[in-house]
Amino acid sequence: MITSPTLLVDEQKCRRNIQRIARKAQKQNLQFRPHFKTHQSADIGNWFKQEGVSGITVSSVKMASYFAENGWDDITIAFPVNIREIEAINRLARKNKVTILISDSEALEPLIKKLKTIVGIMVELDTGSNRTGFTSDQFDQINKLVEKFLVSDNLQFKGFYSHPGHSYSAKSKDEILKIHEDVLSRFSKVCDAVNVERDNYSVCIGDTPCSSKADDFTGIDQISPGNLVFYDLMQVKIGSCNIDDIAVALACPVVAKYPSRNELVIHGGAVHLSKEQLISNGTPHFGMPVQLKDNGWTATVDNGHVKSISQEHGIIKCSGKFMDSVNVGDLIGILPVHSCLTADLMSGYLSLNGDNLNHIRSAEFQYL
Amino acid sequence: MITSPTLLVDEQKCRRNIQRIARKAQKQNLQFRPHFKTHQSADIGNWFKQEGVSGITVSSVKMASYFAENGWDDITIAFPVNIREIEAINRLARKNKVTILISDSEALEPLIKKLKTIVGIMVELDTGSNRTGFTSDQFDQINKLVEKFLVSDNLQFKGFYSHPGHSYSAKSKDEILKIHEDVLSRFSKVCDAVNVERDNYSVCIGDTPCSSKADDFTGIDQISPGNLVFYDLMQVKIGSCNIDDIAVALACPVVAKYPSRNELVIHGGAVHLSKEQLISNGTPHFGMPVQLKDNGWTATVDNGHVKSISQEHGIIKCSGKFMDSVNVGDLIGILPVHSCLTADLMSGYLSLNGDNLNHIRSAEFQYL
Repeated sequence: MITSPTLLVDEQKCRRNIQRIARKAQKQNLQFRPHFKTHQSADIGNWFKQEGVSGITVSSVKMASYFAENGWDDITIAFPVNIREIEAINRLARKNKVTILISDSEALEPLIKKLKTIVGIMVELDTGSNRTGFTSDQFDQINKLVEKFLVSDNLQFKGFYSHPGHSYSAKSKDEILKIHEDVLSRFSKVCDAVNVERDNYSVCIGDTPCSSKADDFTGIDQISPGNLVFYDLMQVKIGSCNIDDIAVALACPVVAKYPSRNELVIHGGAVHLSKEQLISNGTPHFGMPVQLKDNGWTATVDNGHVKSISQEHGIIKCSGKFMDSVNVGDLIGILPVHSCLTADLMSGYLSLNGDNLNHIRSAEFQYL
Repeated sequence: MITSPTLLVDEQKCRRNIQRIARKAQKQNLQFRPHFKTHQSADIGNWFKQEGVSGITVSSVKMASYFAENGWDDITIAFPVNIREIEAINRLARKNKVTILISDSEALEPLIKKLKTIVGIMVELDTGSNRTGFTSDQFDQINKLVEKFLVSDNLQFKGFYSHPGHSYSAKSKDEILKIHEDVLSRFSKVCDAVNVERDNYSVCIGDTPCSSKADDFTGIDQISPGNLVFYDLMQVKIGSCNIDDIAVALACPVVAKYPSRNELVIHGGAVHLSKEQLISNGTPHFGMPVQLKDNGWTATVDNGHVKSISQEHGIIKCSGKFMDSVNVGDLIGILPVHSCLTADLMSGYLSLNGDNLNHIRSAEFQYL
């Protein structure tokens, strides 16, 4: 029996999400290097393996270590290399094919000095999100870096990586495609300017909206979306998926009902869902309730939403009809706003068959 | 060497924060029953023990189980009782003095039916936060509940509990005190109306702002603030503490610098700080940078702030002067917006002496 907040995963939906993108990648001749930061689970990683995935993407050395322990030996750490972790990168790269990202030239010298093992390196491009990486007009800096890689003992130039995170502010498929087109043109400018044969390196993009919705991948070799394994309410709003594609729901016990204000209280708060907020139809919220069934969950209920959360409490605003159908002690499901953060907080999954699936937070780290 | 995001705790500041409130409670003749949801650490719990604390407050059965394992045997679970957890409550209460909260009459019958052990029970009052509990004019419902407790085998009526969470929207000491005064008057109304001798039960309030700033506790027997062990930027804004009272800072490696936009990028994102946001001087942010020193950290730097965060990245907006003083590979500290959530995510602490302090997330649970 579920007694406290528990993250349910619908394996069928997950596998469908993975398959859809794996097939699309195959059709488009793209390498699918999924980002594992969303699920952070060796068990769920295996579902990707069964779709033919062999190379993966992660966002920290810790995550790389976890997946290396769990049978993955070709890993891109898609985060600006942290030069304090070079020793751990050396340990990892001794046994595995590791690719790191450089996003600031200042990191180069320490890398050249301290790397003792061959490591792939990609130059991170800022294709419009203004987060990290070189902009597509910094040709000189990029070429200088690439020249250094070409004469380095341990740095193997692998190409360019970008996470066009600004696609997360899109509100429709059209907006996603417009951003995607612009990203392609920025990559193309850089590839034209770099002094290396195009066949000798790869270009990778890593956002879920463009990977989910675009059909033109001219000039791209790899895609590394992560969120699409679960999707979430934010991706529904962006237009990356349908609400029925969301593959996780937080099962929460109802602990109190306040009919006078049309509010239910659940055990399910910021330490379960995260404080990621979304505005849907003008209403800010932290998730939406669904009714749980033996084989999954229903659509969202009326206009119910998690109106506010504190550390352990969630307050659901709902219709009187929904309120009447629920008793204290019942479980209800909450579709998360941002599944990556909810999964990270919950640190484990329960499948609809009753299997517990593992998570990095309960792991040991050999390489760290 | 710190290589990745690490939560530093300044034991001296922590102990000072604990002492200040312990002494105030003693002076005011209040029982100090600190809320341990903020630190969730047996090691930090011991610092309270050394100030004479013997009874504690937690916000879940899981947390109660953890602290029971770690030598605490008088625990209030200050969360609307989750009737799915009655079995675990029975196990806990067999060996420990456990007090639970009732916030909806619907929970009463299952409790009477399934409790096999003597458990203290407090009625939760909604003293204006509109989160959970009975309002102070629901005399009939409250008296009916209390009558049932008095004839029950296992439910021992312990009194009234309230978390006046609306004090978190205060912006000055004056506003805090106004809310506090109103809370006292609501408690007083309920106490006048309840059919039990006043000496036979306790009244407890549990918010950090009122506990920190009020001096009049007429009608109150216990206080259970939690956040004050660490405080945070939100509490500074509310007026509960000074910035120098904040006892935790997240040490984050600098991974990239973008002088053209006055931005630094750190390894330190939503899975470390949480997505709790605060508006300071009109600017929304997720934390503020400080410079780390051997024995702690400096004041906040100019108007630096964490402008945005994604799962692992933090983007710091800062002055050119601060930017020039920092290199890629340096560590900088971030004062958190909400220390409870940051501590929960970080799942462990490093003291300034270099000791690792434990956390519930790495614990086993005997009673669950």
